[in-house]
Amino acid sequence: MAIIVQKFGGTSVGDTDRIRNVARKVKAEVEAGHQVAVVVSAMAGVTNQLVAHTRDIAEDADPSEYDVVVSTGEQVTTGLLALALRSIGVAARSWQGWQIPIRTDDVHAKARIEDISVERLRAALERGEVAVVPGFQGLSDNQRITTLGRGGSDTSAVALAAALKADRCDIYTDVDGVYTTDPRIVARARKLDKITYEEMFEMASLGAKVLQTRSVEMAMKHRVRLQVRSSFDDGPGTLVVDEDEIVEQEVVSGIAYSRDEAKVTVAGLRDRPGVASAVFGPLADANINVDMIIQNVSQDGKTANLTFTVPEGELRRALDVLETHKEDLRFERLIANADVAKISVVGVGMRSHAGVAQRMFQALADKSINIQVISTSEIKVSVLIAEDYTELALRALHTAYGLDADAP
Amino acid sequence: MAIIVQKFGGTSVGDTDRIRNVARKVKAEVEAGHQVAVVVSAMAGVTNQLVAHTRDIAEDADPSEYDVVVSTGEQVTTGLLALALRSIGVAARSWQGWQIPIRTDDVHAKARIEDISVERLRAALERGEVAVVPGFQGLSDNQRITTLGRGGSDTSAVALAAALKADRCDIYTDVDGVYTTDPRIVARARKLDKITYEEMFEMASLGAKVLQTRSVEMAMKHRVRLQVRSSFDDGPGTLVVDEDEIVEQEVVSGIAYSRDEAKVTVAGLRDRPGVASAVFGPLADANINVDMIIQNVSQDGKTANLTFTVPEGELRRALDVLETHKEDLRFERLIANADVAKISVVGVGMRSHAGVAQRMFQALADKSINIQVISTSEIKVSVLIAEDYTELALRALHTAYGLDADAP
Repeated sequence: MAIIVQKFGGTSVGDTDRIRNVARKVKAEVEAGHQVAVVVSAMAGVTNQLVAHTRDIAEDADPSEYDVVVSTGEQVTTGLLALALRSIGVAARSWQGWQIPIRTDDVHAKARIEDISVERLRAALERGEVAVVPGFQGLSDNQRITTLGRGGSDTSAVALAAALKADRCDIYTDVDGVYTTDPRIVARARKLDKITYEEMFEMASLGAKVLQTRSVEMAMKHRVRLQVRSSFDDGPGTLVVDEDEIVEQEVVSGIAYSRDEAKVTVAGLRDRPGVASAVFGPLADANINVDMIIQNVSQDGKTANLTFTVPEGELRRALDVLETHKEDLRFERLIANADVAKISVVGVGMRSHAGVAQRMFQALADKSINIQVISTSEIKVSVLIAEDYTELALRALHTAYGLDADAP
Repeated sequence: MAIIVQKFGGTSVGDTDRIRNVARKVKAEVEAGHQVAVVVSAMAGVTNQLVAHTRDIAEDADPSEYDVVVSTGEQVTTGLLALALRSIGVAARSWQGWQIPIRTDDVHAKARIEDISVERLRAALERGEVAVVPGFQGLSDNQRITTLGRGGSDTSAVALAAALKADRCDIYTDVDGVYTTDPRIVARARKLDKITYEEMFEMASLGAKVLQTRSVEMAMKHRVRLQVRSSFDDGPGTLVVDEDEIVEQEVVSGIAYSRDEAKVTVAGLRDRPGVASAVFGPLADANINVDMIIQNVSQDGKTANLTFTVPEGELRRALDVLETHKEDLRFERLIANADVAKISVVGVGMRSHAGVAQRMFQALADKSINIQVISTSEIKVSVLIAEDYTELALRALHTAYGLDADAP
């Protein structure tokens, strides 16, 4: 008998028919003899509506009261799913974040889970009762409701699986697994049977939206066996596992992309020691996430250009911060470009294989795609290109790394 | 400095604009130097929608999970009102039923409040913070969410006022007070400045829907000064108070009516001792509320007819119960009539005045309205008449007791 955590997102519980469908999927695991805890999101659209109510009242809503309002979406789903389970003969009850409790820090609206008390849940599971648990919710030390931030339900599920020492944590979503790349762009993208935590983490960070980054990080830390699968069909999904569980490791597992990037060049900086720190210090203070960075010195050796990327949504703020410090920094001008995309080739296999980056550069060159910035990590090579070339680049790389599925 | 409990119903908090309006009414009390606790209902329509979701899933939804779902409506309003108060500079926080806690029994979906712990609320009030509290919600001994049943928010407000020893409990609603009778029927109905608990209790039981019966009962028991007033204008409402606070007591304060009545006659019963108990025992066992009763013996003295009223919604069930016991009871036939209305004249003054009932009978006779059943209590005379005559009877009685307002 295994302990299984199943997590169903907002689309999977989008209306009462779908909640009944979820109940059948839970029942199947119960009938297979497993102990089951289910983590649910708010019904699709509900959280947005609740957020809109808070915005109507106050543009910068106090986050502790914001949490009181938006956490109700998940509460409703837990009650409805418990009802649906009971109505098909499955013993079940709902638990709220404060009842378990799911302890978090007190950073309202983006709290982090600190501890989940599972004694009572475990007792319920042992007497054959399905525990229906809200994602997203937590309880702070001073007994107030917290929420984990958007997408936090994946993290709730993984944290619960870790606390229960579950044998598996199944994340049900509206796609049937993790693909080599976005199948809406590359028709010959393949569903992966397995992917390592590290690769999944990079794919998630780079915009593959099947899992929240933080949930992958937590799964990796606690070695929770994750499975991404579809709520709407019964096929197996993609297992996210330890590297040593993957026997035949491909060099490259997937190709991710993000259009949510903007490039900033600080041109004509006086080249002197500490100039990079002088530029990035104020940006860090303003909580702006700087990603790829290159620095090059001008031909006369007296000035330097510093180029880096920030999330597109933070571009305006980044430029403002730099303008404010123009006198200290002594640069000539700022050049901004939001029409860029980051394309990344991800694979743990590249640790032991040379030439992975070179193959990327060659494939892009063959399509006359200009590379603006390059950055690499142990299991990833990323390039910044003009946004217009995104699809072309993805298809070229998908073929170049031998990821294409056989023609249908 | 006084402690004030303000209660706002579903229409008063029906959208975010109205919630902002409520915040202004709360602010006015704070600025008058009072400590304020606010009890709120779910936004109009929300509870119905949540109930519909539970019905979609399971027609006879488990009441403990039903409570998990429907209690969220009030939670949302507490958060939004706290936000609205903060946004106009009033210190405020929301409290949920489980945080206070509001202890109830464990009869889910119609729980009764047993105890409200007010220490932390009182501390909050004393440091000048408005406490925003959900109506309707409670917490059972085994830490599960309960609800008080529809309309329970009035009771929550009165219970909180009693626990806080509040100086006043203002029930804000969509009418501006308690009227001598329904102003939609009798144009010359007058708003009462004051009414006694006992009268208010009778009026509420008889279908004047401004206050939930149980809340009046509780206010009477704990001597909570209630005020019924409008959310939409600033005039004074109706004070519900002790009898000795009313200096010039009218003989009759109001005329109530209920169309939700049905009459049953059990005809041809063998007249013997215990026959009434034999008839009403099974009805009581079936939890059917029997109201007015008359018994009369047939001319030959051998059989009796027993006539009584039940709520219209329970008529079908009452007839079924009686048919099931037909053999024991040995009656000839059942005669049912749902086209009846109960008209009641209410006033504590009638304790010391003779002729109140006689004036009622005369006024109805003058309009040729036939009285089918009569019942009286210390402060009330009720008659059952054909439903078609309801409006005519109300207007005639309103004039007969001198309740008509001066013509406008």
